[in-house]
Amino acid sequence: MDTPVIEEVLQEWLQEHRDWSRQDKRIRKRFRFKTFPESIQFVNQVAEIAEEHNHHPFIQIDFRVVTLELTSWHARGITVLDLQLADKYDALVED
Amino acid sequence: MDTPVIEEVLQEWLQEHRDWSRQDKRIRKRFRFKTFPESIQFVNQVAEIAEEHNHHPFIQIDFRVVTLELTSWHARGITVLDLQLADKYDALVED
Repeated sequence: MDTPVIEEVLQEWLQEHRDWSRQDKRIRKRFRFKTFPESIQFVNQVAEIAEEHNHHPFIQIDFRVVTLELTSWHARGITVLDLQLADKYDALVED
Repeated sequence: MDTPVIEEVLQEWLQEHRDWSRQDKRIRKRFRFKTFPESIQFVNQVAEIAEEHNHHPFIQIDFRVVTLELTSWHARGITVLDLQLADKYDALVED
């Protein structure tokens, strides 16, 4: 978990997750909601997962748009854990 | 409420609120917490006040640091409402 994913794995993951983009050593996605309370509810769900894994994304709330950025400071890059958590955050809005 | 505060009022307010800084047409403050859940709790309290006033700050959560930025889009600048809400957000952490 403590080393960045190899480039090939990351590229394949990005191909399968077109809403996520790579920003240097981070992956980023904007989640859009119908209301501000829905944005906040999503942030709370993200926060619970983040705290469980002791791995906290950078979160921006701009009214009805929530941006998540994931990276692993210790690994100085994007790790398997980042990709796994990104999947979990996606699953929150897939229902 | 729909016009920016006059420069004199803003300057005086900033003198009295040294933790807030002016960023072009916004006012900004970083709030630091001991834990990530405390950051999230603060964001929820901010969100409740914001929703009550239908006036939503830009919120960034970087682990234990929450940054708020306030502006009034309609007025294209900082209004009395922004200053009033900044006071309310400050009061949340003053206990």
